[in-house]
Amino acid sequence: MSETFHIGLLGCGTVGSAFAALVDERAPEIERITGRRPLVSGVLTRSRGDAAEIIDGADLVVEVMGGVDPAREHVVRALSSGTHVVTANKQLVSRFGPELWKAAAEGGAELRYEAAVAGVVPVIRVLSESLSGAHIERIHGIVNGTTNFILSQMAATGASYADALAEAQALGYAEADPTEDVTGADAAAKMAILARLAFGHWVHLDDVVYEGIEHLTADDMAYAEQFGLGLKLIGTAERVGGGISVRVHPAFLPAEHPLASIGGAFNAVTLESPAITEITLSGPGAGGPQTASAVLGDVVGVMTGNRPLPEPDGAATIARDCSSAFYLHLEVDDRPGVLAQVAERLGLQGVSVKSVLQHGMGEHARLVMVTHPVLESRLFAAVELISGLDFMRAAPRAIRVIDESFEA
Amino acid sequence: MSETFHIGLLGCGTVGSAFAALVDERAPEIERITGRRPLVSGVLTRSRGDAAEIIDGADLVVEVMGGVDPAREHVVRALSSGTHVVTANKQLVSRFGPELWKAAAEGGAELRYEAAVAGVVPVIRVLSESLSGAHIERIHGIVNGTTNFILSQMAATGASYADALAEAQALGYAEADPTEDVTGADAAAKMAILARLAFGHWVHLDDVVYEGIEHLTADDMAYAEQFGLGLKLIGTAERVGGGISVRVHPAFLPAEHPLASIGGAFNAVTLESPAITEITLSGPGAGGPQTASAVLGDVVGVMTGNRPLPEPDGAATIARDCSSAFYLHLEVDDRPGVLAQVAERLGLQGVSVKSVLQHGMGEHARLVMVTHPVLESRLFAAVELISGLDFMRAAPRAIRVIDESFEA
Repeated sequence: MSETFHIGLLGCGTVGSAFAALVDERAPEIERITGRRPLVSGVLTRSRGDAAEIIDGADLVVEVMGGVDPAREHVVRALSSGTHVVTANKQLVSRFGPELWKAAAEGGAELRYEAAVAGVVPVIRVLSESLSGAHIERIHGIVNGTTNFILSQMAATGASYADALAEAQALGYAEADPTEDVTGADAAAKMAILARLAFGHWVHLDDVVYEGIEHLTADDMAYAEQFGLGLKLIGTAERVGGGISVRVHPAFLPAEHPLASIGGAFNAVTLESPAITEITLSGPGAGGPQTASAVLGDVVGVMTGNRPLPEPDGAATIARDCSSAFYLHLEVDDRPGVLAQVAERLGLQGVSVKSVLQHGMGEHARLVMVTHPVLESRLFAAVELISGLDFMRAAPRAIRVIDESFEA
Repeated sequence: MSETFHIGLLGCGTVGSAFAALVDERAPEIERITGRRPLVSGVLTRSRGDAAEIIDGADLVVEVMGGVDPAREHVVRALSSGTHVVTANKQLVSRFGPELWKAAAEGGAELRYEAAVAGVVPVIRVLSESLSGAHIERIHGIVNGTTNFILSQMAATGASYADALAEAQALGYAEADPTEDVTGADAAAKMAILARLAFGHWVHLDDVVYEGIEHLTADDMAYAEQFGLGLKLIGTAERVGGGISVRVHPAFLPAEHPLASIGGAFNAVTLESPAITEITLSGPGAGGPQTASAVLGDVVGVMTGNRPLPEPDGAATIARDCSSAFYLHLEVDDRPGVLAQVAERLGLQGVSVKSVLQHGMGEHARLVMVTHPVLESRLFAAVELISGLDFMRAAPRAIRVIDESFEA
């Protein structure tokens, strides 16, 4: 039996409980990768557990309590005694970074915080590792899902700010007290963290200028549309002259900007560097399972000492038939019964049609349709049957359609 | 003086020469991060250099020659003698992976290949590290920039495949012999590499089913638009039943799919997992400087032994005034001379207007405009002046506009 890797879990709300469940589920795979089996060996909640005991008995502490006190004290205790820490706490990192890294250096421990910015979007790792050889010039980010959801709703429905906020609260995308999100304060803390990583200088939360979305109106949205622009809450960190500027503001984006198409509660970050033009990373910004997954990625990073993972040794089982929706384009004679005969051949193979477009062109017609997902072998069998029909004027054309909504 | 880290460079075409230049430029920063100064200590070209000598004298070999022979022999020689290798060679990795990792294991060397898939888009690192704790269910990718450029042109202009290909060749996005790209073979090799990482099983290039874009017509594009779909060359790797399926096909995407908005020669990959929903990574898929930057990221990864980078110790210089384009919304009395007076106040502060929309509403009017980029302090000074004008019916509203095209 292999060695156990003890994880002390500080905080057991949405993220903490999702993390504990994810560790259970993924323990065998993580043991395969790292040679050690992760185990949540202690849990601290508001009413239960002894912090000192949990920390001192752990190889690594996961801090998902949020807030500054007592998280700060616990994290410093762990780091300075050589226990690694993975945290999702943006307030802690953006306000007390120097103190935390000093403790980590003294204790010889690692501090990781991917989940503190943009949930599962791996911007911390990409900035600190993939782009460590690049010169970052500017970062633009949508790093607060609540405000992006509200603005997306205002744009889509013409709703007022107040109505869109109420809807976000009803759906659980905004808290009862949304101040931290809608004023831009939450985004500011995240941009401070990104700026520090990108530019290699400490940026304190107090250095970040920010403005929220409370004053935006449906009118602004409507006018923006006339200019071909979308309205987002954008965090910016950039080099300006010899210094850097970090700020959060509502801003319009042209439709072709990579952040313009980020809708709903998603987060996204665009990293600009002369050598690479730009990289954009996007994904769910929050949610218990998502944040837990980011935390676990950091935990595995610590467990492997971040060495490249072992290579697989087995050959894969290759699946030869897959399911997909299809677009079908048929050139046919324009005469009665054609659609019925085509539909019959499709039905024989269990191919179900989602939408059809028939386009008469004198003696012949075009029949274009989109199917529901079906095994490719069935679709191609139906196409084979259809090819043999006497009214076909050209070979049928079949192209796959990727549409998640069909599969829901 | 710190230790030198010797890099043997195999291949000195577009990527190789961009890499050598980037190492020169970034050497001081890399020395600060890793404690060692990177130096290109030998270069192998078709006409110059002794491979064995270059490899044996290096701490790490960068292989950017492309093709299988003699790259394979050189890489195996390096790895089995304990010299780390960073390669951009997708053919090598997708066809001879087991042999390469066997050599690496025997020699105790690292093999990295971020640049082999999707250029500077850090999908290899995200899959192998950030998501090492996640269960990947499916990957969709646009991993060939040439075909994405051709399809984007066909969609935008109604051009035929042949015309769009000719344009891509004229602009340098497609090679004189585009076979490898337009048949889907290039994308297939990249998807084989991603599938292996995501699912932990070897997938040989021969296991990947692929289809190209040569048969697509402007008609397909036009019909797709009627269904609200865009047409892309999509690589898919997914779990199907107990096995996995890896394939490359033209496919339609609904407008809201994260890959639908990826235009031109860009690459993008969407990683789906139950725990995280999905992450999308996008950026330039190719180009000498971009690929060189991905290679350098891997080199730095090897040099740091992939430990988290040292934390910065200096405080940042914070810039207090930045440049931005602005949207201005003014509610004014509808009477002659209003626009002139507003324009004068803007001019006094050097604010230049890009577009104006005036909207009469009986006794009052709305003046909405977008400016060219200007220092924020100047814009706010102009707004202050405008606020004091007697025809203003409400406080002016100013919102930033992010639009790279303004700054070109």
